[in-house]
Amino acid sequence: MPQLRKDPITGRWVIIANERARRPTDFIRRPVASPAAALCPFDPGNEAKTPPEVLAYRSSGGRDEPGWRVRVVPNKFPALRIEGDLDRQGEGMYDKMNGIGAHEIVIETPDHGTSWSEMPEPQIQEVLRAFQDRVNDLKRDHRFRYIILFKNHGEAAGASLEHPHSQLIALPVVPENVKEELDGALQFYEQKERCIFCDIVTQESAAGVRLVSETDRFVAIEPYAPRFPFETWILPKRHSSHFESSDGPTLENLAWVLRSTLRKINKTLERPAYNFIVHSAPVQEGPLNYYHWHIEIAPRLTRIAGFEWGTGFYINPTPPEESARFLREASLG
Amino acid sequence: MPQLRKDPITGRWVIIANERARRPTDFIRRPVASPAAALCPFDPGNEAKTPPEVLAYRSSGGRDEPGWRVRVVPNKFPALRIEGDLDRQGEGMYDKMNGIGAHEIVIETPDHGTSWSEMPEPQIQEVLRAFQDRVNDLKRDHRFRYIILFKNHGEAAGASLEHPHSQLIALPVVPENVKEELDGALQFYEQKERCIFCDIVTQESAAGVRLVSETDRFVAIEPYAPRFPFETWILPKRHSSHFESSDGPTLENLAWVLRSTLRKINKTLERPAYNFIVHSAPVQEGPLNYYHWHIEIAPRLTRIAGFEWGTGFYINPTPPEESARFLREASLG
Repeated sequence: MPQLRKDPITGRWVIIANERARRPTDFIRRPVASPAAALCPFDPGNEAKTPPEVLAYRSSGGRDEPGWRVRVVPNKFPALRIEGDLDRQGEGMYDKMNGIGAHEIVIETPDHGTSWSEMPEPQIQEVLRAFQDRVNDLKRDHRFRYIILFKNHGEAAGASLEHPHSQLIALPVVPENVKEELDGALQFYEQKERCIFCDIVTQESAAGVRLVSETDRFVAIEPYAPRFPFETWILPKRHSSHFESSDGPTLENLAWVLRSTLRKINKTLERPAYNFIVHSAPVQEGPLNYYHWHIEIAPRLTRIAGFEWGTGFYINPTPPEESARFLREASLG
Repeated sequence: MPQLRKDPITGRWVIIANERARRPTDFIRRPVASPAAALCPFDPGNEAKTPPEVLAYRSSGGRDEPGWRVRVVPNKFPALRIEGDLDRQGEGMYDKMNGIGAHEIVIETPDHGTSWSEMPEPQIQEVLRAFQDRVNDLKRDHRFRYIILFKNHGEAAGASLEHPHSQLIALPVVPENVKEELDGALQFYEQKERCIFCDIVTQESAAGVRLVSETDRFVAIEPYAPRFPFETWILPKRHSSHFESSDGPTLENLAWVLRSTLRKINKTLERPAYNFIVHSAPVQEGPLNYYHWHIEIAPRLTRIAGFEWGTGFYINPTPPEESARFLREASLG
């Protein structure tokens, strides 16, 4: 059983995934040959190589057969396990609990060689709908306090398989960085009785200098204090705290914004690796006035070095006003 | 002038280093040929390729000439600048100030091809003394609230030059992660009237399962909730909040512990890249009862992916009890 352990100083929880335990030799980097496509566990026809699916949108076929357009399966090497009790315990001065949670893979398309910037918009919209369906299903389990949806695209961003996929992790605690964001937004709300993200949308839409694109439902912006060059946020214009409560037209518009933003990033930076994260409110909370769901995209262009992880203080060589201009001007012809 | 910008939601400061500004094409990765050693700006004889030295320990020669054993120079492409006023300003709803600070390079040895695990201990001790001397000099400038000492070893850890060197950054604010550590330690102290790090030293020394090595002045341990496989902390046994106030015998013993710990890591993991950070109290504060300086070493074995930076919640595949055992058993013969 994986363990959750709490750093006694900062309160940060860490998953000790001892079922994936690795010996020192497993970390020594050796050149890896890419597996033949026939071996990809996410390709149609290879359904038996993954755990049984928990969701699929299909044009044909039965459970765990080809014919799906989007397929969601538990991770074969999960960082957390869904069965069991949290069993919170002390260990001397320390705190731990069982690594209860869910870790799922959203296989975004049967097509091994494509990516979000090439997929048709309805396909991206189906991926977003799968995110939504899985969150709405998992949140009925009250042990799960937070659900994170993310995508690592490209090896430099941590992807270990090429086939387009995203991940979902449901956690029994609200992670520290999320708490920080929630606390900051709550503090602003208590002072001004306004959502800070709504203010950001208004200011950025009016100023335009950090705006990448704008539709009737979304803005894509470079944030004022980005940690990474070309860090890009996508925010809904209408206040909403939970991604999973978005309606169909919103997801349709989001699919368009996402695709066009990633195409601009690809055009400007020659198809970089990137991380993509959905920031949404804790799933067991009702709609929140002070928090606003959004998406953060970080191209992996610079290495995060000792300074950054030691301090949480980032050095970014590209002012967001400049990266916004490059992205706005990227022609998608 | 570089800028410090504050994320309005989390309060996290970011350095927008616009003097190092990079265009999109600068980020596109192309294979880099290693420069011939004659071109290394840190080699003896190439002193003119760096800004003038701010400190050197010499066996011979004059300022900016060969003959030094350790040499400290300002970074040629500093993230922060030492001249000017902070000039705190608002920008709409946002906060910014000038990027005032210091960014220095500690050139640890004239020998281009060595590393800490191969250097003689007196050389490491001189590097530690240079850290101390620079912090004690810079802290007299009251604009600097925090000084971080760190080392990126190897390309995967963010090092861009091979020649052994460390870095120092003096900041006009205390970074978020440091504040978190200080706040957590203060909370413990207020409850128990004991330093939490002193308690950790006592518990780990007694339990032994996460202990890597122990001298009369230091313990090297794997922390209870490590973010990274083989993350290793070195803590002084006697309470002390500020690294820079360490005495000679302490630095001598630290040089021994550091060298032996890095040799164990090299032996176990085949010379991995690593980040090394000195965690010390804010320089303008007097001795603190509740905070305890220490060193954190993180071998760069896994990639930090979207999940980690989105949540501050780490997945670590190696329990610290196992990594401690591997390091204890590494023979240095």
